[in-house]
Amino acid sequence: MNEKLFMPVILGTAREGRQSEKVAQYVLDAAARYGFETELVDVRAIPQIATEADASNVHTEPLKKWQATAARADGFIIVSPEYNHSIPGELKMLIDALFDEYRHKVVAFCGVSSGRFGGVRMVEAFLPIALTLHLTPIEPTVHFGQVETLFDESGLKDKAAWDERMKGMFEELAWYGRVLKAGRQS
Amino acid sequence: MNEKLFMPVILGTAREGRQSEKVAQYVLDAAARYGFETELVDVRAIPQIATEADASNVHTEPLKKWQATAARADGFIIVSPEYNHSIPGELKMLIDALFDEYRHKVVAFCGVSSGRFGGVRMVEAFLPIALTLHLTPIEPTVHFGQVETLFDESGLKDKAAWDERMKGMFEELAWYGRVLKAGRQS
Amino acid sequence: MNEKLFMPVILGTAREGRQSEKVAQYVLDAAARYGFETELVDVRAIPQIATEADASNVHTEPLKKWQATAARADGFIIVSPEYNHSIPGELKMLIDALFDEYRHKVVAFCGVSSGRFGGVRMVEAFLPIALTLHLTPIEPTVHFGQVETLFDESGLKDKAAWDERMKGMFEELAWYGRVLKAGRQS
Amino acid sequence: MNEKLFMPVILGTAREGRQSEKVAQYVLDAAARYGFETELVDVRAIPQIATEADASNVHTEPLKKWQATAARADGFIIVSPEYNHSIPGELKMLIDALFDEYRHKVVAFCGVSSGRFGGVRMVEAFLPIALTLHLTPIEPTVHFGQVETLFDESGLKDKAAWDERMKGMFEELAWYGRVLKAGRQS
Repeated sequence: MNEKLFMPVILGTAREGRQSEKVAQYVLDAAARYGFETELVDVRAIPQIATEADASNVHTEPLKKWQATAARADGFIIVSPEYNHSIPGELKMLIDALFDEYRHKVVAFCGVSSGRFGGVRMVEAFLPIALTLHLTPIEPTVHFGQVETLFDESGLKDKAAWDERMKGMFEELAWYGRVLKAGRQS
Repeated sequence: MNEKLFMPVILGTAREGRQSEKVAQYVLDAAARYGFETELVDVRAIPQIATEADASNVHTEPLKKWQATAARADGFIIVSPEYNHSIPGELKMLIDALFDEYRHKVVAFCGVSSGRFGGVRMVEAFLPIALTLHLTPIEPTVHFGQVETLFDESGLKDKAAWDERMKGMFEELAWYGRVLKAGRQS
Repeated sequence: MNEKLFMPVILGTAREGRQSEKVAQYVLDAAARYGFETELVDVRAIPQIATEADASNVHTEPLKKWQATAARADGFIIVSPEYNHSIPGELKMLIDALFDEYRHKVVAFCGVSSGRFGGVRMVEAFLPIALTLHLTPIEPTVHFGQVETLFDESGLKDKAAWDERMKGMFEELAWYGRVLKAGRQS
Repeated sequence: MNEKLFMPVILGTAREGRQSEKVAQYVLDAAARYGFETELVDVRAIPQIATEADASNVHTEPLKKWQATAARADGFIIVSPEYNHSIPGELKMLIDALFDEYRHKVVAFCGVSSGRFGGVRMVEAFLPIALTLHLTPIEPTVHFGQVETLFDESGLKDKAAWDERMKGMFEELAWYGRVLKAGRQS
């Protein structure tokens, strides 16, 4: 690609001790190494969205920043745990704060879990949301199951294997990113 | 029933101008008239849940109150709009704040929407969550579509027709409420 | 568009007395009038798929025909009722008979129901399937609720209003159809 | 329990070479050893359901047999692979052939897959169906991932570990089975 695609990484949990933060840092680095422009969007930075009157009333500074980032994005990479077989509430509130900014873009998923299934159901729970936002959700998804065992003091273990999995996702993300961008600009 | 079943009504949106509040007030009244003990649980009363370390760490007063209510409940009636084809984030955070308190209980749904479909997909989005919480979700669900047209200055229009719909839900809710309570106590 | 996009209409039920057949005939006609090349794919034409060893083993004539149609398609319009809040089994078997033929294409939905909700949950049930087939599902969806009341002896009543709804779907279908086709060919 | 609960095992795939058959045979044996009355319901035994006029028109012998089994059941154990992130079409047709027979009963799930996730999404896809059939879906679910590696010539490897997993499911199944039966009979 000549012009870099902008693919922000959304960290979907605000909980203390969140393991997904380590995964998000890895994904951010991997996305940059692959050739995307990227930056971290942390749900913690955007408080109290639920009390906004409606999604079009984006009058706080953190929300304005998120809006500008989303408007400029060519797609999104969601890194999120699965809470009770669905997405974290704070991620839903971040997503619900905007609407038009998502249209005709692509979204990929990195699930995080303590258990074996790596957040598979977090992805499923996002699909109806993606439909109505006119976001194209893609496979492959990458699943960081048993996340407490994946990192040591020097970071993600078996990094080459994870890079290979991420490459599969990034190639599909780049394909849709380029193709939908061409469509939006035509 | 000899002993009243306790069926709190959860109001699932914190947004300004929420139409669901009117529906929740009607449902609360209808549930009391049917013969349930009930009370309103408003997601607005329980802020900042996302920053709790984990669900077992219920150390704020509003959360302790919600925990006590949920522990005593025989089931739950969720009154909620559908945001972007799924549940409001603040409702998810309220639910995720507890776990054991839901076990072997029943949950019923009143969907609210501006459009025609009355929050049908809010119910669907809750099903995976109910499964993992060991909550039995039930039909019939009651759907308050085109909610802006349903109320006038004297309250819900065509109240008798809505009472009839609610009765179908309440009968099933009472059946599961009694049967599961007998099981929990045996 | 210079070259016509090919958008076959899949009729998703095989039941006797199926109301969806009338809807599918209307959708087929509306799609042709809009400017798509189209044809009807009837699940009745493809029996016994479940006994095939696997999806790549397409050795019956009806399946070969479906494979050729799907391979040439730029996208799909599914016209289907909702059975028990999900898709008909025969539609699932038709879809599961192929895989590679769907990749990087678009799918739109016309729901059919006797009740008010017009097959909304049929669409939801299709989303996880679309994800893994690399199909982009789109909105708007068009919902033929209370289908028994929609037709008289001269066909669909209020045709102009339905044409307008279909136009919204067709425009989005054409956008994705063109954009993804350009991507597949580059 | 004094009277045995009747928990038929539904084998949800009709494909040639189906790995789920081996799992179903193990589950059938484990259920009997746990103390349930059980029998196998094979989707292969019930052809052509899609051409029935409607679910109440159960006039073929295999369907009459399925109806009698379901009517007598206290709950169901579904053993099924996940095809394209959802349930097999033939399983959906089996389920859709009846309605009243499921009411106020319990359903448990054993997922089967070649991949790591063991049919997790098959379970999710069943939840909306369970809701409308008035079936209570339960956890824990048991997942037979990488199924090709699980059996050798003498059957399921590590049987004691699988028995332990099944026990967790059976205890919950027995709890709901007893409690809902008491409710149906009162």
